[in-house]
Amino acid sequence: MKPLILVSNDDGITSKGIRTLVEIMKELGEVVVVAPDSPQSGMGHAITIGYPLRLDESDIFGEVKAYQCSGTPADCVKLAKHYVLRNRVPDLVVSGINHGSNSSISVLYSGTMSAAIEAALEGLPAIGFSLCDYQSNPEFSHVRDYVKHIAQEALRHGIPRGTALNVNFPEKKSEPIKGIRLCRQANARWQESFEERKDPNGRSYYWMNGIFINEDKSENNDEWALDHNYVSIVPCAYDLTAHHALSILSSDWNLQLP
Amino acid sequence: MKPLILVSNDDGITSKGIRTLVEIMKELGEVVVVAPDSPQSGMGHAITIGYPLRLDESDIFGEVKAYQCSGTPADCVKLAKHYVLRNRVPDLVVSGINHGSNSSISVLYSGTMSAAIEAALEGLPAIGFSLCDYQSNPEFSHVRDYVKHIAQEALRHGIPRGTALNVNFPEKKSEPIKGIRLCRQANARWQESFEERKDPNGRSYYWMNGIFINEDKSENNDEWALDHNYVSIVPCAYDLTAHHALSILSSDWNLQLP
Repeated sequence: MKPLILVSNDDGITSKGIRTLVEIMKELGEVVVVAPDSPQSGMGHAITIGYPLRLDESDIFGEVKAYQCSGTPADCVKLAKHYVLRNRVPDLVVSGINHGSNSSISVLYSGTMSAAIEAALEGLPAIGFSLCDYQSNPEFSHVRDYVKHIAQEALRHGIPRGTALNVNFPEKKSEPIKGIRLCRQANARWQESFEERKDPNGRSYYWMNGIFINEDKSENNDEWALDHNYVSIVPCAYDLTAHHALSILSSDWNLQLP
Repeated sequence: MKPLILVSNDDGITSKGIRTLVEIMKELGEVVVVAPDSPQSGMGHAITIGYPLRLDESDIFGEVKAYQCSGTPADCVKLAKHYVLRNRVPDLVVSGINHGSNSSISVLYSGTMSAAIEAALEGLPAIGFSLCDYQSNPEFSHVRDYVKHIAQEALRHGIPRGTALNVNFPEKKSEPIKGIRLCRQANARWQESFEERKDPNGRSYYWMNGIFINEDKSENNDEWALDHNYVSIVPCAYDLTAHHALSILSSDWNLQLP
């Protein structure tokens, strides 16, 4: 029987990235799409509280069953699992292909990865795919074989429980991608600045600008891999407990009220 | 010199929880508030992309400098660090007190904790406080001494680098809180269901409902602590790398294209 593959993303159901991903997944199994009806970049692991959700069937992918949802990427996966698919359990959940990087610290802000992590905590094998290319019409041709191979490996061998895979691809260069690297999340961050402007009524508003700062000098991290034209795979946990910090706090802090 | 304490939250600048937190922090240092101008529950680690932010000074806290922001909790911390406070570095960042639990898996969806984690990845000691009480006018009196003590310990001893503390309080009961427990994140999750309704035009919409499912039977986790009337403290990492999964993938997967 063909595997059942759920596809979502955060750039919205009309983006080139999800169209590419659906085309590739159709070669591997039966595909169902539940994706946001509008772009949701930077939504992190947001869910919709206090408002209901809309869910409408879409024929955008031809014979592939597809639904667009008014909610966040995490909402889409919840709706897919508990409403659209009901008693059918997907063999794989894939999210993306994101237009833009979700490497290192960007994983925290990523709607793409929140869909994958939401699926993982439902016990489903899940992968978020992202392309480090910010052009309006990015080139995905160089990553197709990698997306297919990584999805096949996940279907064959599974994904370690309690994790979702964060897969990032370098943008298309003149030489082909060098291969795949298993990585840890680079110790990097965004350094923000804010530009104040005045609206036509003289009231201030602020544009956020970020510079990416990578202070990680080692080679086993995702930034190094991407900078050297490799595909990076980081397995991401949703148990955030910092176990080493428990023993530090236990010895340094007084836990009794004075 | 008095320590500088930045206060934010996700329930919005007018909530009872942030007013309680500001009152307590005023006893410990100079307080600056930058908080959302409207409720942002469930926003996870969302940031505002593609739109500018509004930031307006507010006199809601009297002599305490306060600003309301149109963005998410993570936006508020970025604006505070890089615009409002400019060259001054806070000695402590506190977020909350959230109206509702952020224990176990809820940390992923939590706007309260996203403010704290955003501060932590800027290198600042940061704590998110949440009260497991869903009433419209919750009682905070039983947690005041604990909030103050935990903030004092953070100012004295710091918080392990790379982590933010997720502090949850049990709701007020007839007997006093038993004490503080250092915990790991419980292995629990939300099981969603969706209720379909029709709008006045006959179009469907869906309400999400969650049941909390805790399959964690051990005692060293935050759900156990809260169920037994303890304050739970979980140190949370923002490096999501699941190191154990790297070796599993390395041995099970074929990383070469066929």
